[in-house]
Amino acid sequence: MTFPKTSRRFMDLIDVDWPIVQAPMAGTSTPEMAAAVSNAGALGSIAVGAATVEAASKAIQHVRLGTSRPFNVNVFCHAKPRRDRDKERKWLKFLGPEFAVFNTAAPASLAEIYTSFCEDDAMYAVIREARPKVVSFHFGLPGPQWIAGLKETGIVLFATATSPKEAHAAVDAGVDVIVAQGYEAGGHRGVFDPDGPDDRLSTFPLVQLLCRELDVPVLAAGGIMDGKGIGAALQLGAAGVQLGTAFIATDESAADEGYRVALFSDAARHTVMTRAISGRPARCLSNTFTRLGQSARLDAVPDYPIAYDAGKALNSAAKATGNLSYGAHWAGQGAPLARALPAGQLVEALIEELRAG
Amino acid sequence: MTFPKTSRRFMDLIDVDWPIVQAPMAGTSTPEMAAAVSNAGALGSIAVGAATVEAASKAIQHVRLGTSRPFNVNVFCHAKPRRDRDKERKWLKFLGPEFAVFNTAAPASLAEIYTSFCEDDAMYAVIREARPKVVSFHFGLPGPQWIAGLKETGIVLFATATSPKEAHAAVDAGVDVIVAQGYEAGGHRGVFDPDGPDDRLSTFPLVQLLCRELDVPVLAAGGIMDGKGIGAALQLGAAGVQLGTAFIATDESAADEGYRVALFSDAARHTVMTRAISGRPARCLSNTFTRLGQSARLDAVPDYPIAYDAGKALNSAAKATGNLSYGAHWAGQGAPLARALPAGQLVEALIEELRAG
Repeated sequence: MTFPKTSRRFMDLIDVDWPIVQAPMAGTSTPEMAAAVSNAGALGSIAVGAATVEAASKAIQHVRLGTSRPFNVNVFCHAKPRRDRDKERKWLKFLGPEFAVFNTAAPASLAEIYTSFCEDDAMYAVIREARPKVVSFHFGLPGPQWIAGLKETGIVLFATATSPKEAHAAVDAGVDVIVAQGYEAGGHRGVFDPDGPDDRLSTFPLVQLLCRELDVPVLAAGGIMDGKGIGAALQLGAAGVQLGTAFIATDESAADEGYRVALFSDAARHTVMTRAISGRPARCLSNTFTRLGQSARLDAVPDYPIAYDAGKALNSAAKATGNLSYGAHWAGQGAPLARALPAGQLVEALIEELRAG
Repeated sequence: MTFPKTSRRFMDLIDVDWPIVQAPMAGTSTPEMAAAVSNAGALGSIAVGAATVEAASKAIQHVRLGTSRPFNVNVFCHAKPRRDRDKERKWLKFLGPEFAVFNTAAPASLAEIYTSFCEDDAMYAVIREARPKVVSFHFGLPGPQWIAGLKETGIVLFATATSPKEAHAAVDAGVDVIVAQGYEAGGHRGVFDPDGPDDRLSTFPLVQLLCRELDVPVLAAGGIMDGKGIGAALQLGAAGVQLGTAFIATDESAADEGYRVALFSDAARHTVMTRAISGRPARCLSNTFTRLGQSARLDAVPDYPIAYDAGKALNSAAKATGNLSYGAHWAGQGAPLARALPAGQLVEALIEELRAG
């Protein structure tokens, strides 16, 4: 199979057989998934943005037990959240009636449940030391010293961009590959500033603009679910693709039963971009939480990841009673095309479809 | 050049050389544009949704003076607007300060400036009599008798769909070809019910879903600006493509100077979906009017096309003083890729790019 020059350059850079990246998906990807994908010749990913340093270190070791091929470790580079106790109190009050449905009270207070990679020296040291082939940034970029420090060891850097402005910032900072995340993509939108303007570019125009303006490889992310979609993205000029939603229902996924059932239900046709669950805009299968979000004022939601503390508590309370409709069921608009397969078989199917044109 | 089977079937159906449709774009397309596009082997379109029956008849004759090839006549099939004098009065009051900037008063009242094709017997008779190769519906569908009446004469029917639900409704009603309009598309979003839920599917997932579910040809619309984009859409499974924004700056376009200047400005990178201008959601180059729309409550805007009466009056007042930033500068997210060329040359360039891959 012959790939365009830009794809070959990308595949050579990260030493893979196929220009396909399994999206990191914190909470859903697993070391087993990443290893299976990498063993199939694509790039597997794990996400450590929600993990402790110890857990991150173990996860990386875990991937290495499963594969000797290149893989990607994704980190969250969000700005430090602004604490606003009054806002947090009001948000918990707003969520109170939901907790009451499950005979529990809302938490008394909220915590900053994840530390941004940008301020996590220990995580930086662990990842630099572990030297995965690829490290990818979401929600922004770390400082220049860390970028230089990671590159120095030979790590290839990816960054998510949702706009030309973010993409240029990443390339100027030394990032090697841009993940062009369209508005249709599932999960957390990678916008650097969730309170700034957002032109909500979809994959099609975003990829075209970035391919025209950048010299680095651009990966299309958002709406791509099969070999036809991959072929279309390459035709558009992308060097490769990143698929997340396509991997949610794989055997190796950490997605729980509620998530899987929702993915194969009518909810897949009605994804919603909401910040009510986590504090940052993220695309989710339509459920009770996204509907709740539609009735909330945008500016009432505490910053990410403080709001996520409440969101996770509410989902736990609901799940404890058997109610599965408050989950962070992240998915993109291509969700109705999801397949339940082992991750390695999914990669093989994608390649076969791509070959078939 | 070889096209996939689905494209060949589509081209045979409407007797064109290329699977490319120039979008109808009421107010921007012209008979000269349609003729030039059709003469180049693609499908030219005019839109008569904003025209009187006499003007529509003349426009059709005008196209025929320029070409003997097939062309498309587009009509608006919106639901009859609900008159709400109180709402209209409040909306005019909201717009009052804008008019005041230009030393004029807001209109005293608003009118239903366009009649929906669904209730326009005379327009139906004229179009049926004129027998263009294609008639396309936007905003919905006419009744079964008219669909049967148009098909009886050999006219091929297109309808815009923004969701699988709308697409199935159109196919069930007898429509021959679906224009799959992604959320990134410029101008008026074709949603049948502007007050209903909208999953805002982008071109990529919408085309994939419709190609999978329908037996009729599906045209991709939204974000497609060049031969690479056309190739990608065909690769995705589309039988053809519809391009609007790509034709705004052609020589034959009715776009005024302000519109053209805006298209080649930074505003092209910041399109906004707004209903403030016309009463229906439509994607517009960012300008003073779209910013005004962002400060308005959605439910404060009168129904289409009543709100459009106010929008046009405000733009006229602004233009009279040389202010060009209140125009209905419809454009899709691909706007930064627009080119100023004669329409026929643009079609030739698209084909050349498509051939080059």
